[in-house]
Amino acid sequence: MTVPTSARLLLSRADLDFQLYDWLDVESLVKRERFAEHSRETFDDVLDLCATIAAERFAPHNKLNDSREPEFVDGRVRLIPEVRAAVDAVGEAGIVGAGMDASVGGLQLPQAVQTAAFAHFQAANIATWGYTFLSVANANLLLAHGSPEQVDTWVRPMVEGRYHGTMCLSEPQAGSSLSDITTRAEPSADGTYRVFGNKMWISAGDHELGENIVHLVLAKIPGGPKGVKGISQFVVPKYLVGPDGAIGERNDVTLAGLNHKMGFRGVTNTLLNFGEGVHTPGGEAGAVGYLVGEPHRDLTYMFHMMNEARVGVGAGATALGYTGYLKALDYARTRTQGRLPDGKDPAAAQVALVDHADVRRMLLEQKAAVEGALGLALYCGRLLDEEATATDPAERERAAALLEILTPIAKSWPSQWCLAANDLAIQVHGGYGYTREYDVEQHYRDNRLNPIHEGTHGIQGIDLLGRKTTMNGGAALTELVRTISATVERAAGGSADDLAVALQAALDRLVEVTATLNAVPDQTLRLANASLYLEAVGDVVLAWIWLEQYLATADRDDALRRGKREAARFFFRYDLPRAEPRFALLEQLDRTTLDFDPAGF
Amino acid sequence: MTVPTSARLLLSRADLDFQLYDWLDVESLVKRERFAEHSRETFDDVLDLCATIAAERFAPHNKLNDSREPEFVDGRVRLIPEVRAAVDAVGEAGIVGAGMDASVGGLQLPQAVQTAAFAHFQAANIATWGYTFLSVANANLLLAHGSPEQVDTWVRPMVEGRYHGTMCLSEPQAGSSLSDITTRAEPSADGTYRVFGNKMWISAGDHELGENIVHLVLAKIPGGPKGVKGISQFVVPKYLVGPDGAIGERNDVTLAGLNHKMGFRGVTNTLLNFGEGVHTPGGEAGAVGYLVGEPHRDLTYMFHMMNEARVGVGAGATALGYTGYLKALDYARTRTQGRLPDGKDPAAAQVALVDHADVRRMLLEQKAAVEGALGLALYCGRLLDEEATATDPAERERAAALLEILTPIAKSWPSQWCLAANDLAIQVHGGYGYTREYDVEQHYRDNRLNPIHEGTHGIQGIDLLGRKTTMNGGAALTELVRTISATVERAAGGSADDLAVALQAALDRLVEVTATLNAVPDQTLRLANASLYLEAVGDVVLAWIWLEQYLATADRDDALRRGKREAARFFFRYDLPRAEPRFALLEQLDRTTLDFDPAGF
Repeated sequence: MTVPTSARLLLSRADLDFQLYDWLDVESLVKRERFAEHSRETFDDVLDLCATIAAERFAPHNKLNDSREPEFVDGRVRLIPEVRAAVDAVGEAGIVGAGMDASVGGLQLPQAVQTAAFAHFQAANIATWGYTFLSVANANLLLAHGSPEQVDTWVRPMVEGRYHGTMCLSEPQAGSSLSDITTRAEPSADGTYRVFGNKMWISAGDHELGENIVHLVLAKIPGGPKGVKGISQFVVPKYLVGPDGAIGERNDVTLAGLNHKMGFRGVTNTLLNFGEGVHTPGGEAGAVGYLVGEPHRDLTYMFHMMNEARVGVGAGATALGYTGYLKALDYARTRTQGRLPDGKDPAAAQVALVDHADVRRMLLEQKAAVEGALGLALYCGRLLDEEATATDPAERERAAALLEILTPIAKSWPSQWCLAANDLAIQVHGGYGYTREYDVEQHYRDNRLNPIHEGTHGIQGIDLLGRKTTMNGGAALTELVRTISATVERAAGGSADDLAVALQAALDRLVEVTATLNAVPDQTLRLANASLYLEAVGDVVLAWIWLEQYLATADRDDALRRGKREAARFFFRYDLPRAEPRFALLEQLDRTTLDFDPAGF
Repeated sequence: MTVPTSARLLLSRADLDFQLYDWLDVESLVKRERFAEHSRETFDDVLDLCATIAAERFAPHNKLNDSREPEFVDGRVRLIPEVRAAVDAVGEAGIVGAGMDASVGGLQLPQAVQTAAFAHFQAANIATWGYTFLSVANANLLLAHGSPEQVDTWVRPMVEGRYHGTMCLSEPQAGSSLSDITTRAEPSADGTYRVFGNKMWISAGDHELGENIVHLVLAKIPGGPKGVKGISQFVVPKYLVGPDGAIGERNDVTLAGLNHKMGFRGVTNTLLNFGEGVHTPGGEAGAVGYLVGEPHRDLTYMFHMMNEARVGVGAGATALGYTGYLKALDYARTRTQGRLPDGKDPAAAQVALVDHADVRRMLLEQKAAVEGALGLALYCGRLLDEEATATDPAERERAAALLEILTPIAKSWPSQWCLAANDLAIQVHGGYGYTREYDVEQHYRDNRLNPIHEGTHGIQGIDLLGRKTTMNGGAALTELVRTISATVERAAGGSADDLAVALQAALDRLVEVTATLNAVPDQTLRLANASLYLEAVGDVVLAWIWLEQYLATADRDDALRRGKREAARFFFRYDLPRAEPRFALLEQLDRTTLDFDPAGF
């Protein structure tokens, strides 16, 4: 397959190859039963296919989808036709089920490869990709917890690209605080439920793509436990489906309104009403819902899905940062402006932007962020593969523990620093970057969503410090420290010895400060600066990812590998040092925010 | 005058009063001849007037001006009518000349008061304010360097609000690099010039407001010196004006196009053609231009204007950060969500956002940024007043030196950290903050321009390190160090002793690292990380401003003053520590960016 040249501004294929094959040795996975049908060639084919569809069907309408966002006309959503063409192309290519079982129509690709493949769509047009992204998350949850009948009825058509899915968690009064949802599901005599309530921020919540929309809805069954322990999960389709799979009656899920956002404009973001009485399926009130798994177990199910979605959000943030970086680099190589400090002769030709030290700094900052974040995303994909397929159960457990503790970082670090990369991509473009004639301002606006959805930055901090560092007696943290230490050991004494020393010092601080925080009985004090903890630990983790990439360059000496080694050094010199002031503050158990009297704001 | 209550979300009047009167003792200026007609009452009246016009005429169409940006229709610019109403209200109120001489129709207000007064417009609607902002900058340059006749012809109508002004510096091929402009001005027999060339990024460059547009245009007179030394300044009006002040023939300045930006959408940003032959004033080719001052002296004139404009940009960034903070605070006080870590009973009521430690951190971070930046802007205004009116010439010189070295910081620090404050304002609002239903996403988009225009962040770094720290044998730096040291001395031994110690340590590092850098003969190496130098010095300067504000609270103990002291502590604990890693890197004369082979990107 000939990938169109425009794909070179989405992601660097050379970097993907380096990370997937040279560093993470994804090819070795084909020895495992699940991936036995695969080879490097099939992996490459999928990467080529996704790069091609992304470049040809997604990227060309990214701007248009932003300037002509979905409209609510006569009770329906109107999208530009390019969205359907793109989403259908993904469905027809069989990509929705890239990582799913062959038994449901999937390709059984490793998650690491899927993450890399999907990143092309995220870079090209993250809004349009949202329709598929939500379907994949929805399908994976049903595959994990749904009945075989639910899988047949709802998942197969999603894998075929005929149905689309959503995740309906938030409500107008309950965003971060899921325990406060009030949507209720009342049992019917036939074993189904009737769902009543309002859901907010539902991406891809309504549209006319495909044949049906499969909503996964969090709701409480009356009489159940209070708070999060009383939450159950339901399939609530837009249209009921007959036993033969034929589309039937309209269910009582209706579009109450669209949210108009700063970015991510091309994917509908909706307020949905369930059981408002607009429709009365079967002649009764309420939206028909089907319980997924056991009642009151949703917290467990949802965490499974959320971990996956959070790593996916991080990958999306990374992809936006990555394409912004490539565009800034492209601009910096061709645009000339000014002269170097030692060559101010106005008669001399202007130099390319890339020759200015400050522009190089901004490009290296972006490179360090996006290639580092990509590494973390692919590493997490690799861990998912280990968790699912490692032959040694201890290895599976180890992968699961690492995933738990890395997930909040894999979500939040790229959401913060690849957004910062987009900020720098604008800066490299100068005034042009601030205009809608260029792409980078949209990437910046799109990327700003990522620190908010799927658990805000603050929620990730509480998850990491409050839950992940202590779960199972601190097993996940221990595993992370052991893993990073092993990298330090491999690097010690070699050309990256200085980086190994710096990483070990940062890791020691991480361990020390975590122990100090976790010894605090007052939970409010312990977690007061959890966001800063998240950021500091994130920088240590990224330094480790960079040292890993550095070590993976040992096989050859070429421009890519020299660039990797220098970018690693850049990260250690320019970025990692910002962790220590955070650790120092955390260690003091600072009470400034707790003791502050809000009357003084 | 009763200021409308909606003005409370623009700026805090209590903070303005504290900073202007309790800290900066602006009232004492009325003893000086220039301000002898004024009193605290007249200052307050102007603040009330500007707050009222900003709240009633500017804020209400801020969103509309963003969503319905200027259009280019039949060769003309079409604006929403609310813009004209707002701009005319400012003109009619006599505010354009707030700081100018009474002899030209101005109010002769101190700059510190003007900065505070204008900040209301910047907070309310920075785009619409752009039309007046540019007129003020233009008029001030002509007042400083134009002939009496030019002042009468062009400045008086601007002060009356009948004409508007622009600054035409950049060209499509010369943004940051002014030495590369190619617009030329050919002398005519009658002593005027004919101007030919294209100007880019000209804010307020065309519109149908008022009667005329006065362009101040940088151009080169053929045969003059190369580079920046050959630049001269010209008045090029949209319409020629007769000796009686009557609007005459159309000059050959034409609108070639509008730039469509991410933010700041409501002010036209134009590409202008001069002397393209669309019009032939007087039957000849070229746009008629009038030389301002001496030929080839523009660099000097422009720096005068640029310093003022740069402080103004910083004040605008501050105002956007400030209004975003007040809106986030308002939201955080009313919106409930979740419970505290020690109170997870789902039956308990949800708490207000402001009760969460992480939300308080985000609010304190905003407060520290915006009240600190406001302090720096007002301090610079106060220095302008000292420079203009201090009776002791040594005091005037001291103020001028401080202004020189503080200007790049007053421009860049708010552009970076009040933008970061807007980012946090979005985060406090959660998903709602990302929608266009709320104001903060627009402030964030608008504020993103500020690190780019009037000299990018990188340019400010080179200005500070490359020029300002060494000018006049380092006099400005010496003056800054002396001034900060005096504050440290005043604080030592008191309740802020710990802050004094920390500030002294940071100041010592600043001095030490500056000496190291300025001893480097290789200019490219010396300036390689000038942007990081700018950021580190900026943090030290802001710490000083916060210690100043802390000391100014000594007179009373109330919620505002307790809040000030805690915000000062917050800045020292959470923000100032980020300077040291920057200094450490700078001290090492790091060559990573210089030695990096661009093939490795």
